[in-house]
Amino acid sequence: MEQEGKFSYVGIVEKAGEISQIRIFKQYCESLQGLDSFSHVIVLYWLHLRDNPEERNTLKVVPRRHPGAPEVGVFASRSPSRPNPIGLCVVQLSRIDECSLFVKNLDALEESPVIDIKPYIPRADSVPNAQAPNWTLSGPRT
Amino acid sequence: MEQEGKFSYVGIVEKAGEISQIRIFKQYCESLQGLDSFSHVIVLYWLHLRDNPEERNTLKVVPRRHPGAPEVGVFASRSPSRPNPIGLCVVQLSRIDECSLFVKNLDALEESPVIDIKPYIPRADSVPNAQAPNWTLSGPRT
Repeated sequence: MEQEGKFSYVGIVEKAGEISQIRIFKQYCESLQGLDSFSHVIVLYWLHLRDNPEERNTLKVVPRRHPGAPEVGVFASRSPSRPNPIGLCVVQLSRIDECSLFVKNLDALEESPVIDIKPYIPRADSVPNAQAPNWTLSGPRT
Repeated sequence: MEQEGKFSYVGIVEKAGEISQIRIFKQYCESLQGLDSFSHVIVLYWLHLRDNPEERNTLKVVPRRHPGAPEVGVFASRSPSRPNPIGLCVVQLSRIDECSLFVKNLDALEESPVIDIKPYIPRADSVPNAQAPNWTLSGPRT
């Protein structure tokens, strides 16, 4: 089996802040049709500053933004250092203006490439009673 | 800006069913440490059968598994036909046995490559009151 794959950037984090702007490239703009009927969106983005051999070979981390967190495997953390530096963030969709999404709660750096946008479907994606260790409760959300 | 990136497969869907088995490749196995303290996990996988130019150039779809769904852009659907055929599924973690995760509710085909595993953190990932159109309520969860 081939052990690697390729993806294209479909957009970019144009502005990060209280309201962040994600600009979808023109050739994919049409794919946003109907997204405005969802209140929340899942953004998959590329943690471009971690796209180097050292960070991609990191197997364990101490999640430093979360006081009291133990050392864990990267698959048990949301650390940006991981074999495939894909960031995932659930955001609130404020509005769509032409090819740009304006969203709240995006935890991504400006200029991060965006690789996918998915509608948030509570029936599939929301598990309010999921159990997680206490260290996830302090610090930022992820 | 470079317009594309590369990722490595970190595992594979070994068995799909009521309980699905995800085998993480040996070199990444250590990265699972601590994941067993989470009840749910986000699986990102590669929709390998859709990794062809035709499917990757699909901009709009009618989500056929959902009766009554209108035509929407692929970013407003969970269709496997999309520019980057990345599947996302929130699953319940039954157990971890060496390098394998045994999970419930994985909507992935057998032999799908796995590209990332993330812990599900309800504080970040659960939005029970998120709004979604009615067509998302019938058919499978995604």
